Amino acid sequence: MFTEISSMSRTVLIGPGHPFVIIGERINPTGRKMLSAEMAAGNFERVASDALAQVAAGAHMLDVNAGIPLADEPALLARAIEVVQEVTDVPLCIDSSIVAALERGLSVYKGKPLVNSVTGEEERLESVLPLVAKYGAAVVGVANDETGISEHVDVRFAIAKKIVDRAAQVGIPRHDVIIDPLAMPVGALPAACATLFSLVRRLRDELGVNTICGASNVSFGLSNRPGLNAAFIAMAIGAGMTCAITNPLEERIRESILAANVMMDHDPNCMAWLAHHRTGAEAAGAGNRRERRTARRASRGV
Amino acid sequence: MFTEISSMSRTVLIGPGHPFVIIGERINPTGRKMLSAEMAAGNFERVASDALAQVAAGAHMLDVNAGIPLADEPALLARAIEVVQEVTDVPLCIDSSIVAALERGLSVYKGKPLVNSVTGEEERLESVLPLVAKYGAAVVGVANDETGISEHVDVRFAIAKKIVDRAAQVGIPRHDVIIDPLAMPVGALPAACATLFSLVRRLRDELGVNTICGASNVSFGLSNRPGLNAAFIAMAIGAGMTCAITNPLEERIRESILAANVMMDHDPNCMAWLAHHRTGAEAAGAGNRRERRTARRASRGV
Repeated sequence: MFTEISSMSRTVLIGPGHPFVIIGERINPTGRKMLSAEMAAGNFERVASDALAQVAAGAHMLDVNAGIPLADEPALLARAIEVVQEVTDVPLCIDSSIVAALERGLSVYKGKPLVNSVTGEEERLESVLPLVAKYGAAVVGVANDETGISEHVDVRFAIAKKIVDRAAQVGIPRHDVIIDPLAMPVGALPAACATLFSLVRRLRDELGVNTICGASNVSFGLSNRPGLNAAFIAMAIGAGMTCAITNPLEERIRESILAANVMMDHDPNCMAWLAHHRTGAEAAGAGNRRERRTARRASRGV
Repeated sequence: MFTEISSMSRTVLIGPGHPFVIIGERINPTGRKMLSAEMAAGNFERVASDALAQVAAGAHMLDVNAGIPLADEPALLARAIEVVQEVTDVPLCIDSSIVAALERGLSVYKGKPLVNSVTGEEERLESVLPLVAKYGAAVVGVANDETGISEHVDVRFAIAKKIVDRAAQVGIPRHDVIIDPLAMPVGALPAACATLFSLVRRLRDELGVNTICGASNVSFGLSNRPGLNAAFIAMAIGAGMTCAITNPLEERIRESILAANVMMDHDPNCMAWLAHHRTGAEAAGAGNRRERRTARRASRGV
């Protein structure tokens, strides 16, 4: 069982037997003032450079979001997608909470994208799923609904099942629904990650779907966030998670994913692991310095 | 279900609901020429300082091994145990492949130790288990037998079950048998870790036992071993492993275990995680430099 996402010339397979798929999170104006101002002014240079930097750092797909208050989000999202598809051939995740923006994005996208996202809310199911079906896309199904985000595994599982069932009714097959079981900050909700890991296993074993999450959120408010994020992502992969929206420019995240692929027997002959470290040695630290600079810029929100 | 290991004044609980137990691996002359020569000459100063350093770095228990070729191992092991119990009160793991050495070690130990180890080999079951029962100790059961180390989960599971059954016959309860499912180098055996994780889950769910492993072996022969070991230990904890024989002086291992405890909801209010990073900041790097020196010395085998 795998999900196939594609651009015009490249296909990515998401599934239990495949290496973990990294979806770069950086093309998102939320919390990035400079990017936000530039996009609103029609300047997409940073969008293009962020796309290239993330692919160079190992992203297999890129999330593209244009959520800027008071801006014409449908037009900006469509333009951002076009810009990214001009500079790279990795498949994209079209990310918006506005249905009209998703539709504009879908209309310009070349290939089969991942739509981010639908929830279990009745209004979202009715508006987003037919769009996904119309364009033959895959979709992220987020395990919350009108009642909010439940702390109970059973409730989130039931919402996930509802999304899968409703998707099937409009012709979207189970393998094109990737469930986001919701990674909440562990500092505020101590059982958040333990709950998530068991939910990931159940979603795979009982519902037969792939899973995804935003992997930078769990460490919110705690010290040494990269250390926590690295352990989280390895444990999520061990539990059976198949992809995540995260920042490949953070070396600890990237390294942890590569190491987890080795541990899961998803890196034949440890080729990717060894290549990653060979490159690092050859660049004699220059690449790492560049990464650190980029990461610092990223953390300042520029 | 937990295993209780104790010294005269301190008890450690090993089990699914508890923080992961770190058993310091350093007091072992294998591959450490200087330590080996000193112990053979009756000098146990490094044994004492290694004990203190590991406890300071977060070890909850210490493994003590005196396997030196041509030496009087029973006498050396007993003396090493006495020395360690003089300088620290953490419970110990008595480690030898020689039954007479285990017996001498057990005879001098104050408290309830963990015996490392018995295998599924008939001769070992018959010689080690009665000793463990006689001294009321707990025991590590290693999942191999006369046929060697199987690559098949079912075979290792069956050996583990045999050890638990045979232990019960001499009066050792299930909760006093900790199974070592055998962590093999993933570079040589690509499925080694994936196999191990599923075995750890089965051993917990179907056999109801705690699990342990030597956690530094999996990365043998590959680059950036600390990066691989850190991911491995977090994933093993996620799979349900409850303790490991490892090196707490390696900061990446220590950090990964602390992060995994947070993720498993085994670190109330993230107290241990926050304390670890607070200490680091206060020591302004001095502690870390010391750790790095110790780790470098360790890697040179002194």
